Amino acid sequence: MTMTEATMVRVYLAEGQNQLEPLIKRLHDWEKVRGVTVFRGISGFGPSGEVHASRIVDMSLDLPVVVEFFDAPDKVASILEHLNNEFSPGHIVSWTVYMNTGGDN
Amino acid sequence: MTMTEATMVRVYLAEGQNQLEPLIKRLHDWEKVRGVTVFRGISGFGPSGEVHASRIVDMSLDLPVVVEFFDAPDKVASILEHLNNEFSPGHIVSWTVYMNTGGDN
Amino acid sequence: MTMTEATMVRVYLAEGQNQLEPLIKRLHDWEKVRGVTVFRGISGFGPSGEVHASRIVDMSLDLPVVVEFFDAPDKVASILEHLNNEFSPGHIVSWTVYMNTGGDN
Repeated sequence: MTMTEATMVRVYLAEGQNQLEPLIKRLHDWEKVRGVTVFRGISGFGPSGEVHASRIVDMSLDLPVVVEFFDAPDKVASILEHLNNEFSPGHIVSWTVYMNTGGDN
Repeated sequence: MTMTEATMVRVYLAEGQNQLEPLIKRLHDWEKVRGVTVFRGISGFGPSGEVHASRIVDMSLDLPVVVEFFDAPDKVASILEHLNNEFSPGHIVSWTVYMNTGGDN
Repeated sequence: MTMTEATMVRVYLAEGQNQLEPLIKRLHDWEKVRGVTVFRGISGFGPSGEVHASRIVDMSLDLPVVVEFFDAPDKVASILEHLNNEFSPGHIVSWTVYMNTGGDN
């Protein structure tokens, strides 16, 4: 089993703030990260303390959204140099993970 | 780029067990964590081995739900002192992450 | 507060690829992991660069799906021996977490 170190990142947004599309576009077109997955929460609150929730999930514009991606530590470090200043404090977290390399060699 | 250490927590619940609202209320009103995001899974099983799944996601009451939050290590440690005893074994996990502080200084 | 080390795993799939059911079945029936939660993303892209997204979440067959589970490090290591070769490179990540054991002793 071969695994390699990677850095995982989660960026926390609210759906109504128009930050999602530019971020995905940046990660896809420019940074060319290996992959990105976007999750929508069903409820949440941020530093403002205001609760964002919905019973009709797909119709809300104000639900929490998390953009998750992982890639080689060096590449992610350089992406975070930019992103960390672009998002409010406490909206990006990262940690080290081990990624499968798909083979025994 | 400035980042600071934080502890990430994920708490695993089932939607029909009435644990979600008291937990969110506690984290919001009392513990005053920086932020919380709640995710609903589309399927899952717990230690009982019983599979919870639904094709009509929003109508099920028995789907897995994950409550995710992160904050300063000391603050989270004190929250976990309480939560770890309140939830069945294996329903809370935590790990260290690095959080953006939003500026170069 | 007692916590014990565990290994968290996330496996990234696309819904239309018929990998989800066999994986859940394997983890449930054979590996007997403590629990599994399946999340559906609302958008994402993989190494191909092709974006999978949908406005009508429940009708898409091509959305990203994440299968998450955690268990004792030894048990997970043996599960990953198998899974790491079964999935394309970069589709499985794992890291160490601390799990509640539900009591003070």
